[in-house]
Amino acid sequence: MATGELTQTARTTVRRSERGSHDRERAYSILDAAMFAHVGFVLDDQPFVLPMVHARVDDTLYLHGAPGTRLVRTLGAGAPVCVTVTLLDALVLAKSQMHHSANYRSVVVLGEARRVRGAEAERALTAIVDHSLPGRSTEARPPNADELRRTAVLAVAIEEASVKVRTGGPVDDEADLGLPVWSGIVPVHTVFGDPEPDAHSGQR
Amino acid sequence: MATGELTQTARTTVRRSERGSHDRERAYSILDAAMFAHVGFVLDDQPFVLPMVHARVDDTLYLHGAPGTRLVRTLGAGAPVCVTVTLLDALVLAKSQMHHSANYRSVVVLGEARRVRGAEAERALTAIVDHSLPGRSTEARPPNADELRRTAVLAVAIEEASVKVRTGGPVDDEADLGLPVWSGIVPVHTVFGDPEPDAHSGQR
Repeated sequence: MATGELTQTARTTVRRSERGSHDRERAYSILDAAMFAHVGFVLDDQPFVLPMVHARVDDTLYLHGAPGTRLVRTLGAGAPVCVTVTLLDALVLAKSQMHHSANYRSVVVLGEARRVRGAEAERALTAIVDHSLPGRSTEARPPNADELRRTAVLAVAIEEASVKVRTGGPVDDEADLGLPVWSGIVPVHTVFGDPEPDAHSGQR
Repeated sequence: MATGELTQTARTTVRRSERGSHDRERAYSILDAAMFAHVGFVLDDQPFVLPMVHARVDDTLYLHGAPGTRLVRTLGAGAPVCVTVTLLDALVLAKSQMHHSANYRSVVVLGEARRVRGAEAERALTAIVDHSLPGRSTEARPPNADELRRTAVLAVAIEEASVKVRTGGPVDDEADLGLPVWSGIVPVHTVFGDPEPDAHSGQR
């Protein structure tokens, strides 16, 4: 697995540089923590952005889908792709509307997808099942040959990418600091509720 | 405000039709519940997907950003855009890895953005401040003329759009129902933590 800096290009240079970085470990921790990604592709000049579950194995991002979908057909042919994940950490409430903001961590990965098959595809599907619930793949029945045929796996190398993170409280203008307005942050958490077994779960 | 059906085109036809709809009210409730959107645009054939806060006013989606950013320059010139919001409701754990899924609600809006100014821009910024915390705009200082100049507002008509929703438990193959594997859903909730005032908030 590669370490160090991701490739910084004009396309991945973060404009507000105090929030941007190209640190690979930071990017990976955000990609791993996000439960799903938003995947962008282009068809007849129109951008499409679809939510998809993803997983990372070393320096590669994996996606999956039914072989006949527009997304799989487009990206499987090597079209440019953008995979973005975002974790919202807090609403940032300033004394002025202008300085309202959000604390978040996001990663944008640019590249071209490639269709993968065989052992790499199987490893990718295992990683996707384990992405949100580590170890789940050891409990559930693995895919059989027919299921593997009906599942397309796409890979995107994590090379040209950027990380953007905002933390901390509001940054108000000096002149506004005395205004009698509540200022600070409201944390946002994503949490799991109690698992709800279905009618067939009791057979364990 | 328009009611009824959104425009269904080949581009917004949801392939797995049991999950798709074009109901405007349903789309609006999802757009309003999502705290931020992922916005897709194309630059030199490369799709970009960036997280942005959004707000809806009647049949229009609004975004905002600094006037000099790539996104604002590209979309302000009338380029095609895709605005997607996704709410993750649960992980769906099946007895087979293949039937693992997620319960979610998402809306995909396709269109072209237009730059708006003046009274419409001010209304949009108010809506954006109120989007996650209704009423906040009545507490915080409104933008002054200079701040308005430094904030670009983009509008996207909500016309060509689709809604996708998955609910319910796993749908396992008959042959797998007896497997001794936990099956069901794990709800996912997004919740606010306790507000954390900053050093200047006590002056209220």
